[in-house]
Amino acid sequence: MLPFARVTIIGLGLIGSSIARAVREYMPSVRITGHDVSAEVREAARALKLADDVTDTAGAAVTDADLVIMCVPVGAMAAVASEIAADLPGDAIVSDVGSCKASVAAALTAHLPASQVVPAHPVAGTEQSGPEAGFATLFRGRWCIVTPLTENDEVSVERVAEFWRRLGADVEQMAPDHHDLVLAVTSHLPHLIAYTIVGTADDLQQVTQSEVIKFSAGGFRDFTRIAASDPVMWRDVFLSNKDAVLDMLQRFSEDLSQLQRAIRWGDGDALYDRFARTRAIRRSIVDQGQDDAAADFGRKHD
Amino acid sequence: MLPFARVTIIGLGLIGSSIARAVREYMPSVRITGHDVSAEVREAARALKLADDVTDTAGAAVTDADLVIMCVPVGAMAAVASEIAADLPGDAIVSDVGSCKASVAAALTAHLPASQVVPAHPVAGTEQSGPEAGFATLFRGRWCIVTPLTENDEVSVERVAEFWRRLGADVEQMAPDHHDLVLAVTSHLPHLIAYTIVGTADDLQQVTQSEVIKFSAGGFRDFTRIAASDPVMWRDVFLSNKDAVLDMLQRFSEDLSQLQRAIRWGDGDALYDRFARTRAIRRSIVDQGQDDAAADFGRKHD
Repeated sequence: MLPFARVTIIGLGLIGSSIARAVREYMPSVRITGHDVSAEVREAARALKLADDVTDTAGAAVTDADLVIMCVPVGAMAAVASEIAADLPGDAIVSDVGSCKASVAAALTAHLPASQVVPAHPVAGTEQSGPEAGFATLFRGRWCIVTPLTENDEVSVERVAEFWRRLGADVEQMAPDHHDLVLAVTSHLPHLIAYTIVGTADDLQQVTQSEVIKFSAGGFRDFTRIAASDPVMWRDVFLSNKDAVLDMLQRFSEDLSQLQRAIRWGDGDALYDRFARTRAIRRSIVDQGQDDAAADFGRKHD
Repeated sequence: MLPFARVTIIGLGLIGSSIARAVREYMPSVRITGHDVSAEVREAARALKLADDVTDTAGAAVTDADLVIMCVPVGAMAAVASEIAADLPGDAIVSDVGSCKASVAAALTAHLPASQVVPAHPVAGTEQSGPEAGFATLFRGRWCIVTPLTENDEVSVERVAEFWRRLGADVEQMAPDHHDLVLAVTSHLPHLIAYTIVGTADDLQQVTQSEVIKFSAGGFRDFTRIAASDPVMWRDVFLSNKDAVLDMLQRFSEDLSQLQRAIRWGDGDALYDRFARTRAIRRSIVDQGQDDAAADFGRKHD
């Protein structure tokens, strides 16, 4: 039996449009309703036939939903929750895909009954944005973290978990605060650092931008991918998960200072010890199917 | 006409073995001699038929070469140069593939006539190491930077450039010091930061290593690839290009502090402005063929 029969997706960017495509592919009998705040995105969504119905307001999108998934930047969650509050059926579940869970839980429950709010975060994405960028297999083999509230009943949580399993994800449950700490290190800090180094390179005067681009295959290009991610989404993540990000950033800066000192003093042993430890993590990530086993991410060389 | 007829490759790891395979593929009439300091690697090279002859000493490898390419960690260049000095034919060119050029030029010319030394650096590689990891197309569409010495004649420089063009690379000339500055930002700093963040994540106690691995698709896994690179090679790079790396690291740290402050004070506009600038660089890298146009580096999603 399908966990939900009528799914509403609010926000039809990369993630929302990927959910729509995946629902179509893996649960074809589910009725999909979509909404996006942008008229241009709504028009694209209609042209792409992402949903059975694309509504012009968020309220109209939820009136007969049994699952509503909020796929908007985390800073927009409260406003959207407020917009749908009056039209949300009393037995519908509201979930989301936000990268921070404590702040999103607070934003949604400020306007909606906590028993109906089951936050979740599929750890998947690409550097691209918009309704054209989504694809049905985005969540396959990726983890989706469900962070239930104390007000949730078990059945609601299980229905959301089953929804994600149907889209091909593995599901893990976690407390919202712990989620925010884990993602601070596996996602938020890497994005902050990537944005920083790409900006640093862009600002140099001794090295031209043309040189940075030409010789980026030395390593730099790897950072430009995640630094090409959606700026609004990431602004909101850093504002919403401030404490955990600042904590991780502090640890990173201390570790970087230690390596800086080793370079300054020519301490080759300290550098070697640090560099020799990190291959094992890469190997585990590949072994557990969380990255491509092929060299160079499987990039084509031809 | 081929630029060289008898090529000797010293060091048969990822880069050396890729050169051997590429020479075999694109200049099949060239005679290839190989040597590696490791008996195990020499044996693997013989089994893989990477060269027409694999010698047990570096000196024996160069006796009838017209091009010798040093593919050893930059910290080993001086020792190898000293080993081959007595056996090097007076008309042979010695080149290399080191990631730092000023220090390598000094190391090689300490033992060999500067007129015969034409340093070069193909900006290409993967995170893998060893003679099995190489492949013939590694240099295709990548840049090779030749950094001539004042003692070089034009013909020698052009022969080395033509050698790399035959392997599929585009060739650019640069002064050694400028090369070291450019690569500090496009390669050395990214590697240092990747090694650091992977180490930081490994040291956390509130977040388990298993969680870091499971949820690495949020961005972290991108960093683990270059942090899986050869630790000896990279130790030597940071010791050899100290000043340029420390300069870039200082700029990066200042930029990171600025973003840290914006997060602490909740300055969303400053974050947005920074994050909105970086997509353009990614686009240029893709447009210029220096990375895959497909989302997510073209990683498979199935």
